[in-house]
Amino acid sequence: MDRYVIRQRRVFHARPETAFTEFWTSVTIAAELRRLGLRVRTGPEAIDLSQVPALPGPADLAQAADRARAWGAGEDDLRAVLAGHTAVVADLEGAAPGPTVAVRVDIDALPLPESTSSGHLPAREGFAALDREAMHACGHDGHIAVGLELARRLSAGDFAGRVRLLFQPAEEGGRGARAMLGADVLAGVDRLYALHLGLGLPVGDVAAGTHGFFANSKLRAVFTGRPSHAAAAPEEGRNALLAAAQATVGLYALPRFATADTRVNVGVLHAGTAPNIVAGTAELGLELRATSGEVCDELERRARNVLTAAGAAGEVAVRIEQIGGATTARCDPAAVRTVARAVRSLPEVTGVHENYRFGASDDATLLMRAVQANGGTATYVVVGASSPAPHHSPEFDIDEACLGIAADVLERAVRGTAEDPAV
Amino acid sequence: MDRYVIRQRRVFHARPETAFTEFWTSVTIAAELRRLGLRVRTGPEAIDLSQVPALPGPADLAQAADRARAWGAGEDDLRAVLAGHTAVVADLEGAAPGPTVAVRVDIDALPLPESTSSGHLPAREGFAALDREAMHACGHDGHIAVGLELARRLSAGDFAGRVRLLFQPAEEGGRGARAMLGADVLAGVDRLYALHLGLGLPVGDVAAGTHGFFANSKLRAVFTGRPSHAAAAPEEGRNALLAAAQATVGLYALPRFATADTRVNVGVLHAGTAPNIVAGTAELGLELRATSGEVCDELERRARNVLTAAGAAGEVAVRIEQIGGATTARCDPAAVRTVARAVRSLPEVTGVHENYRFGASDDATLLMRAVQANGGTATYVVVGASSPAPHHSPEFDIDEACLGIAADVLERAVRGTAEDPAV
Amino acid sequence: MDRYVIRQRRVFHARPETAFTEFWTSVTIAAELRRLGLRVRTGPEAIDLSQVPALPGPADLAQAADRARAWGAGEDDLRAVLAGHTAVVADLEGAAPGPTVAVRVDIDALPLPESTSSGHLPAREGFAALDREAMHACGHDGHIAVGLELARRLSAGDFAGRVRLLFQPAEEGGRGARAMLGADVLAGVDRLYALHLGLGLPVGDVAAGTHGFFANSKLRAVFTGRPSHAAAAPEEGRNALLAAAQATVGLYALPRFATADTRVNVGVLHAGTAPNIVAGTAELGLELRATSGEVCDELERRARNVLTAAGAAGEVAVRIEQIGGATTARCDPAAVRTVARAVRSLPEVTGVHENYRFGASDDATLLMRAVQANGGTATYVVVGASSPAPHHSPEFDIDEACLGIAADVLERAVRGTAEDPAV
Amino acid sequence: MDRYVIRQRRVFHARPETAFTEFWTSVTIAAELRRLGLRVRTGPEAIDLSQVPALPGPADLAQAADRARAWGAGEDDLRAVLAGHTAVVADLEGAAPGPTVAVRVDIDALPLPESTSSGHLPAREGFAALDREAMHACGHDGHIAVGLELARRLSAGDFAGRVRLLFQPAEEGGRGARAMLGADVLAGVDRLYALHLGLGLPVGDVAAGTHGFFANSKLRAVFTGRPSHAAAAPEEGRNALLAAAQATVGLYALPRFATADTRVNVGVLHAGTAPNIVAGTAELGLELRATSGEVCDELERRARNVLTAAGAAGEVAVRIEQIGGATTARCDPAAVRTVARAVRSLPEVTGVHENYRFGASDDATLLMRAVQANGGTATYVVVGASSPAPHHSPEFDIDEACLGIAADVLERAVRGTAEDPAV
Repeated sequence: MDRYVIRQRRVFHARPETAFTEFWTSVTIAAELRRLGLRVRTGPEAIDLSQVPALPGPADLAQAADRARAWGAGEDDLRAVLAGHTAVVADLEGAAPGPTVAVRVDIDALPLPESTSSGHLPAREGFAALDREAMHACGHDGHIAVGLELARRLSAGDFAGRVRLLFQPAEEGGRGARAMLGADVLAGVDRLYALHLGLGLPVGDVAAGTHGFFANSKLRAVFTGRPSHAAAAPEEGRNALLAAAQATVGLYALPRFATADTRVNVGVLHAGTAPNIVAGTAELGLELRATSGEVCDELERRARNVLTAAGAAGEVAVRIEQIGGATTARCDPAAVRTVARAVRSLPEVTGVHENYRFGASDDATLLMRAVQANGGTATYVVVGASSPAPHHSPEFDIDEACLGIAADVLERAVRGTAEDPAV
Repeated sequence: MDRYVIRQRRVFHARPETAFTEFWTSVTIAAELRRLGLRVRTGPEAIDLSQVPALPGPADLAQAADRARAWGAGEDDLRAVLAGHTAVVADLEGAAPGPTVAVRVDIDALPLPESTSSGHLPAREGFAALDREAMHACGHDGHIAVGLELARRLSAGDFAGRVRLLFQPAEEGGRGARAMLGADVLAGVDRLYALHLGLGLPVGDVAAGTHGFFANSKLRAVFTGRPSHAAAAPEEGRNALLAAAQATVGLYALPRFATADTRVNVGVLHAGTAPNIVAGTAELGLELRATSGEVCDELERRARNVLTAAGAAGEVAVRIEQIGGATTARCDPAAVRTVARAVRSLPEVTGVHENYRFGASDDATLLMRAVQANGGTATYVVVGASSPAPHHSPEFDIDEACLGIAADVLERAVRGTAEDPAV
Repeated sequence: MDRYVIRQRRVFHARPETAFTEFWTSVTIAAELRRLGLRVRTGPEAIDLSQVPALPGPADLAQAADRARAWGAGEDDLRAVLAGHTAVVADLEGAAPGPTVAVRVDIDALPLPESTSSGHLPAREGFAALDREAMHACGHDGHIAVGLELARRLSAGDFAGRVRLLFQPAEEGGRGARAMLGADVLAGVDRLYALHLGLGLPVGDVAAGTHGFFANSKLRAVFTGRPSHAAAAPEEGRNALLAAAQATVGLYALPRFATADTRVNVGVLHAGTAPNIVAGTAELGLELRATSGEVCDELERRARNVLTAAGAAGEVAVRIEQIGGATTARCDPAAVRTVARAVRSLPEVTGVHENYRFGASDDATLLMRAVQANGGTATYVVVGASSPAPHHSPEFDIDEACLGIAADVLERAVRGTAEDPAV
Repeated sequence: MDRYVIRQRRVFHARPETAFTEFWTSVTIAAELRRLGLRVRTGPEAIDLSQVPALPGPADLAQAADRARAWGAGEDDLRAVLAGHTAVVADLEGAAPGPTVAVRVDIDALPLPESTSSGHLPAREGFAALDREAMHACGHDGHIAVGLELARRLSAGDFAGRVRLLFQPAEEGGRGARAMLGADVLAGVDRLYALHLGLGLPVGDVAAGTHGFFANSKLRAVFTGRPSHAAAAPEEGRNALLAAAQATVGLYALPRFATADTRVNVGVLHAGTAPNIVAGTAELGLELRATSGEVCDELERRARNVLTAAGAAGEVAVRIEQIGGATTARCDPAAVRTVARAVRSLPEVTGVHENYRFGASDDATLLMRAVQANGGTATYVVVGASSPAPHHSPEFDIDEACLGIAADVLERAVRGTAEDPAV
């Protein structure tokens, strides 16, 4: 059993694709799900890109498509996804009546070169990322594998109700969940389980419920000044690079709040073209987070002040757009109970948490809120992975023993949902 | 006559290529010079790249090569230049004995998208840059055209002595001249004329000599920190983007000097990959300039302090390398006299300057010093071009009437050099 | 009863004195305690200044002494305190044997001009600060009054055991508690109650125990550069003001931690003497806080890096000294129980908290740890005060109804301590 | 002869008083001039303070008055000057008709503690500043002495025309000249000589004329935010200290200009009161300079943008006021000629400059422009002083041999003015 899930994990680990360019990833998932007999939706049926900010540009999409082809994706399969429609939704009908249970996993990688150190298992065992552009540094390769394993285990239909598997792109950056909601992928869902591996828990620990989600807001700020010759006419320039650097140090100086835990990060800064030209353009990518939605809004308001002022100081125009976000959420006791019951039946699980502190963001919160708004229930499940290095770092890895545990937990939770009187 | 020089200028204007990727440019220049009957050296015979810092990487070279092919460069011609050997040196023997006179023009463009405004002549007349990657925003397209026109006028050999035309790549960034010196291209040169169009002078004005060169030093600083998850473990990160931003604001705060005019510019900043990752790497491109070599050295020393300290503040490693530079220089009175005499014989020239204030940098100064070190003489000639916008800005342009004037001035100066008793 | 405590509070409110200059305050407290019949220690018997960093300088002490005289302090009383020995310790013997119970209140004000708005009760009622130098903006005026009221109520000795009242100077800045420990003021103490009014609780709410103390470290950084003429020789200067400003923005950019709540504040910056002189000296006063002692140490380590690097960037010398600090602490369940029992017997108390989140720092934590290290028990009691504005702001005030409640709580807790089997 | 001028210089050197507090200085000058028989104007007759920005406050004036009394100034004399009316104007009638010639010297010191090094002559010889508040670090002590020596030499009236000696306060900061113009002190003046010692010239060199004055503008920026508790409610604060620090680094990043030499200096920053309070107020003192008045105006405009934006970024109010300034000026050839003729007749002068580059600012330029506007002529005379350290630094000193030379130059220039046909 585990050998399938580990093999899948390694195949996807070696082929990381970032938000909305999960071309090879999505067509490979869809093919496998079809092979297992599920009813599969892809392309615009699975995701609505019409409101998505900051999609990759044509050049990036084309480069990613070439890579997907090089990795063996067929032209027919690719056609539906090449604009960025990289979500996959799969349905499975049970043998008996019962609730509709959705399981959501995310599938995108991060723009980070993977460690080549011999201490890093994927490097040592030969399944590290095939190029230096991206890395599965948040465990989503494992999420995909667990999702497929779950499909494999349930494919006989020997359960009550219906199961819907959601393979979501673009979790990093917080845009995929909202776009999938646009395609109404949660229609009829009574119960939602979202999965994450790792997050500080050791292998053997499982959290049936979580709290402490950070609401977040991701912004892009584009500074447009005026280039000039750095020696012959510096005063003619309006220095966009300087404005972006000043905005950066200003953003990091936003106050801590006594009323919520907060985060500020400027993760991307690109400016200028040559040392002897006063830079006319600059671009920042940043995010604000808070454990309270109100504080996150207030932080964003202040961040916009800082960005605007940095432009005003140097007569540089600033355009700010939100490029993603997530919200806080709460796990429903009923859903937590179902998972906790499933977990307690597993001998390989040695630690159970009912209300684990998450301490990061996930746009699964938007899906949870959508299910709850329709009268359903949801929980966010964390399966320990004994990561040797933090998420989003080049040495991030998971202990693959977590994959079987995660599949066990979710399989039992799905099968057990029908028994929950609350559903 | 002028129609040739204007036509050439427009052809090169439309095909801008930046430092060490002047592939189409250099093979086109070489072909035309051979057609005109000159003895032409290209590739490693014209330039030695062994000591050049920060050459373009393989991907950039490959992309530039593809573009050169798309613009019609032949594979045979390209072979010699594709590693970055984009200099062209051409010799012409006169009918009578006399001095060896070199004329140096530079050929590279800037990484700047050209204006598409209808007020911008190249856009209106249809010879603007064929892509958005680069622009001839410093008049080097005109320099090439004047160099070719000069070859055309002198190709009959009806002059005393020898003429050597130097088409230099990578003036922007200050690396081409030093590399050409490595190929000994000034061997035997008695007199050097370096040309620049524009620089604040109107059409009709010519400077036979110049002063006020800025010595400069161009640096690249690479910051290497440690990436981490911006929400789950910000304290694990070592923020290279922040260090680069702090270094930037620190560099701009370097003091003005009472002892020389100075310049500081951070023209390039690239850092980070995603808003939710503490950025592990960042890179700055910057330059320091001063009208005194000693002050330029002192500025560079202080800039290195600022860069190093910005790293130390955040436990981010910093590697600094010099990627180019130029020096100050003085024009020899004898050479200035020859040009001034030539200029005064031209009715279209209405203003003559013998000691114009340059106010920028040019690595022609290295060539001037090399000629002077061998007992030769040199001057830096500026031909007014009535530019409607500053050099290095998207609306930069030249009044094409300057091209014929520049050819006239140089032709007469070359022919008149043999008459100078000092040579 | 309450009229005494309110009258006292207003007298002290009008005469705020900052850390180690509580001259009038301390002699007035001592006189009143003696009048009430307590055995009083003042001067070096109550506090050891030998290890205290950054005591006020002679000029500041002299000015404060003059003010204390102007407010009526007698020369004889002043003599013992004028070097900064402004602590008062008072003992009271009970009629029956029993534990030694200490109550600690702090007595210093903040260097903040008080609001003159008519909406501000002290201004409207005429007991606002008599000068603009300082303000009781943290409720310590109330603490003094409650301490005196307690002395008054217990002065008959009708209780079991012994009571020791500690009136501590210099809580703001975190230096007074450590210095009082140097005079061994906790010798023999079995139980310690520390009091604070306000802290976000409304009148009627009382916290019998607290958590979430911030450990903190207060630093002074002195930058020594070299002054020079700002126009004639800016390059000769080494700009200490600039280094201090850069350090400030760097300090605020220290990362948030996922492992503890943190605070960074640069509260004081003084630099330079005239606009036309490059500033040769600058001084910063700053503090780091964290809800974990280890994280506070790590924050301080990083802050020192930032300060040192800011100096190195500009060749400015930096000297850093710690000028105060506090630690975290935990309240003992036995002590919390005693207070909770006392509180529940009071009809005017409508809300009881057993583990209130403190969210700030108090060097009472050092006293609590010292009592605990000797086998005693301690708790930190908060009595709600319905403050209309945050602590440390010019409009801060307390609802004086809190004073009687605080006296009631402490009186009953003191009397009830003997009944606690754990003591 | 020289012994008088040196003695006077040392007396004033030991008693430095800064702008508008030159109480002892002004009454001592006036008394000596009266003793020498000149007609003396002081107080409001010599200076109009009604438009002067940023005069010292009552406490500073009172402290300076006490010091002047301690140094022996009489109460009667002080009365006229205690509001800041510290200018002295003295007239002398010649024996024959002729032009009215004004000589302007400035009298204020700088807020800088003087060097106590044994290598510093005033320290070694016992005439260093009597307190640590201020220092004659720009040679104005010598200017006073030369002015008095001139009065002594001319007091017999053995010259043609009239002489008016102007002893101007508050040159540093650029407020005194404008205020004296308000009292019409140049009425009837045909020729003005302004004097400065030092400025990079060795003893024996004299400049009869100067160029390269920096226009300047001195600003005060007051930031008003909102204080709050740095731990309990940092988000409630509006951090004025941070805004001031950010403004500072932003101001130093103002661009260099190709069109003029510029200077930027933030010389004073005072903010905050305690490390644990988010600072509610901050104040900057800064200056902008340029060798072109237009560029100075443009720099000031940009500086105001930076200040305003720094406030806007953090929701901190900013009030900006100009507290002083100077302009550029040109020396009249006729006046330069008179001085040059005088200088050439002096054997102790070994180097004569007719157009020395000044490289700093002096509000004497306002007086020069006022004389020129009335049809008169003016020049700015520099007498070399071999200063061992830069102006405005703690080791600044003058070789006292310069004093006699300066008196000789001015005496001969004054006497020779009548012979100038242009006057």
